[in-house]
Amino acid sequence: MTDIKDYVPHGELIQFAKAVYQSVGLSEEDALLAADTLVQAELWGHSSHGMLRLAWYYARLKSGAMKPVTNTSLLVDSQAIAVMDGHDGVGQVIAKRAMLESVKRAKQHSVGIVSVRNSNHFGTCMYFTRMAAQQGCISILMSNAGPNMAPWGGRQKKIGTNPWSIAVPAGKHGAVVMDMANSGVARGKIYLAQKRRQSIPADWAIDKEGRPTTDPQAAIEGFILPMAGHKGYVMGVMVDILSGVLSGSAFLDQVHGPYDPVNKSGAGHFIVSLNVEAFQPLAEFEARIDDYIRSLKDVPLAEGHKQIYFPGEMENQADIRNRQMGLHLPEDTKQSLIQVAKESGQEKYLPF
Amino acid sequence: MTDIKDYVPHGELIQFAKAVYQSVGLSEEDALLAADTLVQAELWGHSSHGMLRLAWYYARLKSGAMKPVTNTSLLVDSQAIAVMDGHDGVGQVIAKRAMLESVKRAKQHSVGIVSVRNSNHFGTCMYFTRMAAQQGCISILMSNAGPNMAPWGGRQKKIGTNPWSIAVPAGKHGAVVMDMANSGVARGKIYLAQKRRQSIPADWAIDKEGRPTTDPQAAIEGFILPMAGHKGYVMGVMVDILSGVLSGSAFLDQVHGPYDPVNKSGAGHFIVSLNVEAFQPLAEFEARIDDYIRSLKDVPLAEGHKQIYFPGEMENQADIRNRQMGLHLPEDTKQSLIQVAKESGQEKYLPF
Repeated sequence: MTDIKDYVPHGELIQFAKAVYQSVGLSEEDALLAADTLVQAELWGHSSHGMLRLAWYYARLKSGAMKPVTNTSLLVDSQAIAVMDGHDGVGQVIAKRAMLESVKRAKQHSVGIVSVRNSNHFGTCMYFTRMAAQQGCISILMSNAGPNMAPWGGRQKKIGTNPWSIAVPAGKHGAVVMDMANSGVARGKIYLAQKRRQSIPADWAIDKEGRPTTDPQAAIEGFILPMAGHKGYVMGVMVDILSGVLSGSAFLDQVHGPYDPVNKSGAGHFIVSLNVEAFQPLAEFEARIDDYIRSLKDVPLAEGHKQIYFPGEMENQADIRNRQMGLHLPEDTKQSLIQVAKESGQEKYLPF
Repeated sequence: MTDIKDYVPHGELIQFAKAVYQSVGLSEEDALLAADTLVQAELWGHSSHGMLRLAWYYARLKSGAMKPVTNTSLLVDSQAIAVMDGHDGVGQVIAKRAMLESVKRAKQHSVGIVSVRNSNHFGTCMYFTRMAAQQGCISILMSNAGPNMAPWGGRQKKIGTNPWSIAVPAGKHGAVVMDMANSGVARGKIYLAQKRRQSIPADWAIDKEGRPTTDPQAAIEGFILPMAGHKGYVMGVMVDILSGVLSGSAFLDQVHGPYDPVNKSGAGHFIVSLNVEAFQPLAEFEARIDDYIRSLKDVPLAEGHKQIYFPGEMENQADIRNRQMGLHLPEDTKQSLIQVAKESGQEKYLPF
């Protein structure tokens, strides 16, 4: 049974994570952003990208693998396109700057492309694509990531789950949002199952010998399966090429994930932002999206379903619910936060 | 047993399809293009998008649902972006013009975006993205399509398989190419199984009551399942929004597929072409892609696999093999071609 006292107000978690980030040298503004991305993932119901990861980022900042002061520079700055170097700074800060840069270019040139090298893991993609949607842009953001899948037909970790998101301005509905990885399951969900001491479905991963497994530890030591078989492999390669090869960043197993405390990440990103107004009046577009959502929801329900959701709607609903109720953290996540609080000397900000 | 005399030289199939297209009013150039796209799909080993479809396109041209003379116009023509109206012309002709338009803009502005309305089904996406790759551009092309999947949780056809492709210039390897639909299986593969009187795997589709089925006819009357469960649904929506909503074309079940002989299609497309040279020297990029492919292929093989393919490599190999050996068409496809030959009066071009 979960007691009401087990729910933590999200604002207190933001203050705690912000204090931890500031303790290792992030500016107040950058610390607030990095903290907010973690807590926002919890609010959307994606704990796999939530507070569990604070300890990982903290370790990377302490070791110097990720630099606390984020300097970005533009290597290419030519009308609709830019190539940005993140110089191994904080992934969330780099991703926000790159996203705002692409929106600025989209407002001027109808489309803005930003290709990013030498960045870091930045949490959920949709935190940033939703920013662009709020400004009337359709935005696509993708990133490569540390290797945890084998190429189709192989047995060696080479390809990351390589997440990507698209967000679309949707008027009164906020945004229609896709955010997915090309693995059958986000690696973070396996870490979460491990933390929660739960078994995992047999089609999420194979062990190091290539056998299906329900043990999260064996899955972490083995290979996550791509989604939809070879299709997930092919999409993972494409996200990697656009994020890593085109930007001049690392690719395949040269990229290091956020759970690696010591190595420079080398992650690259790719962003396309489209100014809807350049294609048709925004109000007209949003009215068409409204028709679109109505048409989806008018469909007769399949057995066992209570409603049809548009992409991103579940997160919108979870966000409202969790802002009211507070957030419930698993015991292992709490323990890791207590540990980070001790190490960083920020125990007074611990909200539990 | 298949006899050598059952193999048809691909060039003869092109001449036949071209003659059929010309008989219903396509110019020689447009007829050759439309014929080549069908035969090229066969050469790549994708018979589901091959000669089987000539009868469908022929019926649409005869009924006037698709216009034989393709007029395209630009509704928006602003530096990096264009919105093209296809005026219900031939999908292949519109897609080629739109692709070349995006490449032209990419050469001038580093990126070229073309959004297309009032088009038609154009065959495989990669026929067109490969054109851009040959010109040093990374290209993304997507299209919406006639509805054949239910939204996740529903039981009514609303969303097309909505295919998309990305092609990347790859120097001596030609191109790295993704081409996929967001259904678990391309609808064409179910039609092909029906033509070949084969059963289909149980996870391809559900029947009209929502039960899994191995009968291609029941699948055609029911619902194709999205790939990777709800992920395929979400991606299908995004491709539809970018192709149909952004362009001002039809979307969801307002789009009519190529197997519908009488209704205007309303299909929309979306293209992004990136001039690699604007990001880094093309030779440097292609050298990195070469390293990428070598790194993929260096992985130890999983049991039952003879090599690791890079995306698009299987099609390259099939193309070489089939150009040498000729193409083997299933009996039902042959029968449909004989029927089209009779109707169009082009029997003298029939290559079997």
